[in-house]
Amino acid sequence: MEIISSIPELRRRIEAFRAGGAGPGTEPGSLSVGFVPTMGWLHNGHLALVRTARKADDLVVVSIFVNPIQFGPGEDYDRYPRDLERDAGMTSAAEADLLFVPSTAEMYPVGHSTTVEVVGGLTGHLCGASRPGHFRGVTTVVAKLLNIVRPRRAYFGWKDAQQLLVVRRMVRDLNLGVEIVGVPTVREPDGLAMSSRNGYLSGQERLAARAIPRSLERVRFMIQNGERDAATIRREAAGIVAAEPLLAIDYLAVVDGNTLEEIERIRGTVMVALAVHAGKTRLIDNIRMEVGG
Amino acid sequence: MEIISSIPELRRRIEAFRAGGAGPGTEPGSLSVGFVPTMGWLHNGHLALVRTARKADDLVVVSIFVNPIQFGPGEDYDRYPRDLERDAGMTSAAEADLLFVPSTAEMYPVGHSTTVEVVGGLTGHLCGASRPGHFRGVTTVVAKLLNIVRPRRAYFGWKDAQQLLVVRRMVRDLNLGVEIVGVPTVREPDGLAMSSRNGYLSGQERLAARAIPRSLERVRFMIQNGERDAATIRREAAGIVAAEPLLAIDYLAVVDGNTLEEIERIRGTVMVALAVHAGKTRLIDNIRMEVGG
Repeated sequence: MEIISSIPELRRRIEAFRAGGAGPGTEPGSLSVGFVPTMGWLHNGHLALVRTARKADDLVVVSIFVNPIQFGPGEDYDRYPRDLERDAGMTSAAEADLLFVPSTAEMYPVGHSTTVEVVGGLTGHLCGASRPGHFRGVTTVVAKLLNIVRPRRAYFGWKDAQQLLVVRRMVRDLNLGVEIVGVPTVREPDGLAMSSRNGYLSGQERLAARAIPRSLERVRFMIQNGERDAATIRREAAGIVAAEPLLAIDYLAVVDGNTLEEIERIRGTVMVALAVHAGKTRLIDNIRMEVGG
Repeated sequence: MEIISSIPELRRRIEAFRAGGAGPGTEPGSLSVGFVPTMGWLHNGHLALVRTARKADDLVVVSIFVNPIQFGPGEDYDRYPRDLERDAGMTSAAEADLLFVPSTAEMYPVGHSTTVEVVGGLTGHLCGASRPGHFRGVTTVVAKLLNIVRPRRAYFGWKDAQQLLVVRRMVRDLNLGVEIVGVPTVREPDGLAMSSRNGYLSGQERLAARAIPRSLERVRFMIQNGERDAATIRREAAGIVAAEPLLAIDYLAVVDGNTLEEIERIRGTVMVALAVHAGKTRLIDNIRMEVGG
């Protein structure tokens, strides 16, 4: 695996790979590039993305870039954990081919003034309501990265379900021609969704955080057993989380799994999504289910 | 020349061309695609773009799409002239290879909700101030078209200088990897810049409009002869235009030719730009000069 920090150098390497594949016995353009954008401080959730790409694509490119413009004032941009050596070892072990680690100046040179934004409902709810400008930062950096790498497929985790749906919409709307592949959330043995932010938690907060997946599993069970009233589902999940004094709910919503609009009846593609503060740490999680009639 | 209205079909045709070029004796990827986006009702200004592309590129793609989202309320979207047969004949005569004429539903399917915007000074002045949202509409549609066509070069006229600079900034910021080529303004024999909107003018307005290029030529002469005070230049040009009772100045500005900020001293890359109403018709024009110390 090679580590590359320059955009032109990364482009050259990827183009050389694409051109090299068009040899005897190969269809030109038949080689596929898979791309996994991350903010680093990798965990098994990221590695599941890399392994999924490794199975599907011929060249696997991973990026690590802590994107300043998707953090709001007072959020954790400055203390977000960074350890390139550790991350490079993990990426290499997961058999990525290229690791792209641009500087902030490489991604946002002086005078950078273009934003990409998905407007309307998809970004107006959930984290979009709690973190104004967050998804504009995400779609801007992802548009840039997709234009640099030009992959056939890019991989995102369902843990950040809203991000995945927003990126998919952006890719469709801007005709980027990339398949956005969603990969299931990877969890700790006790159910907590893996997140680079879990390391912020104190021991007590970490124990309390188990209520998050417990609440989601509880309402999954209720829905599987026929509960169809969204308010009841919401109340049940919120009760489990609120019982932990160390947790404070930012939002807990029962929504349509495609539009993210709040729903009253459980039907079709349904998501229960929540964001919770544990001390200074904000954690998100969700479940997504297909529910008949 | 072929006329194509479907995005997937256009993509297939362009990819087949690119792949076909990678035969014996050709470097893969050595064939270049040139792209000329237009709103149709073509004139010699557009044809200069097509001919410039024809000289530089192996495949020349022209698009005609009257982009609704770059028109403001009360502007001329509905009455903008449309005549595909006429335009196709002219494009074909200029030796374009593919003419892309998508419908509005093809470009903006239901649920389309992504915008691309250059924020800050470059869009805050001149037409950006007079037409709020206009450049957001332009950058959104151009980003889409560039992603569909993936040209090596795209051609824009210097008549719409601010548009050219905004698109160039967008392409750089989003890492689109396309060269934006500026082509000099083409003028009528009496100096009026060619524009699809000139056809709106009554006979009297058409005569009055000659004051626009006359004012620009006058101040070009003054600058060439050493005038360095921007206010004097501005006053002189405005006086020539204002002497025509059928013309009303929207803006007339002496600006830095790269940042579009107003300047006091004529120095470096300088632009004199104006927008003028002649009845219901809005016309723009500019000159751009390099001025030593």
